[in-house]
Amino acid sequence: MSPDEAQVLAANDAFYEAFAASDFPRMSDLWAQETAVMCIHPGWDVLVGRGDVLDSWRGIFGGGGAPIVASRARALITGEVAMVTCLEGAHDEPPSLIATNTFVREQGRWKMIHHHAGPVARMRELPPLRTAN
Amino acid sequence: MSPDEAQVLAANDAFYEAFAASDFPRMSDLWAQETAVMCIHPGWDVLVGRGDVLDSWRGIFGGGGAPIVASRARALITGEVAMVTCLEGAHDEPPSLIATNTFVREQGRWKMIHHHAGPVARMRELPPLRTAN
Repeated sequence: MSPDEAQVLAANDAFYEAFAASDFPRMSDLWAQETAVMCIHPGWDVLVGRGDVLDSWRGIFGGGGAPIVASRARALITGEVAMVTCLEGAHDEPPSLIATNTFVREQGRWKMIHHHAGPVARMRELPPLRTAN
Repeated sequence: MSPDEAQVLAANDAFYEAFAASDFPRMSDLWAQETAVMCIHPGWDVLVGRGDVLDSWRGIFGGGGAPIVASRARALITGEVAMVTCLEGAHDEPPSLIATNTFVREQGRWKMIHHHAGPVARMRELPPLRTAN
């Protein structure tokens, strides 16, 4: 694993730690400041802009948050932009969501510019789902 | 709209034209050749690599394809990487899916490196869904 991959996976871990802890200041710090951001929560329309995106997290945290954990994160880095895919779900339950988290490097730190999460389930027979790395 | 935005939205349109026409050669041409690619179809696990991603499209097209149309596409460009979000659905029906399509510039052309689509529905009360541009 390259240093860049390790760093972006650490940023992805930090996102889920802030999420699970309903830690709004940390969540706010994880999102890009200098780059346009957006967010698609499961089933939601897209939110565009740091204000609306952070308001959504404030609302989610205010509603009691979610004890979410992520698994099987993998990073794909293209220049200064990195995408991480991972499974999401409640602790000790099978993952119920799949996410793509996109990061950009700002002042040497990977910052989130997009979170897109939605349900994962075996909906079609072709091709078979992958079950492991 | 900047020339880059117009070009990436045209690439996004071409993706949905190939999708709706079950045009495999065109779909294959739309995906990046020099950059790692991945794809999350609605409900599926992530597919990684050009071989598995294109196999999935071959399977979808072989199963009769889908008369899908996209609406309300908007682009967010960060350097050489662009993300487009749009709604997807059957013609003359309300959109049922929301997608993030990510493109990278290869030899002057925007090529897809990630397609992530999943259901859109009003699942939570906070914040209100946006209904129009």
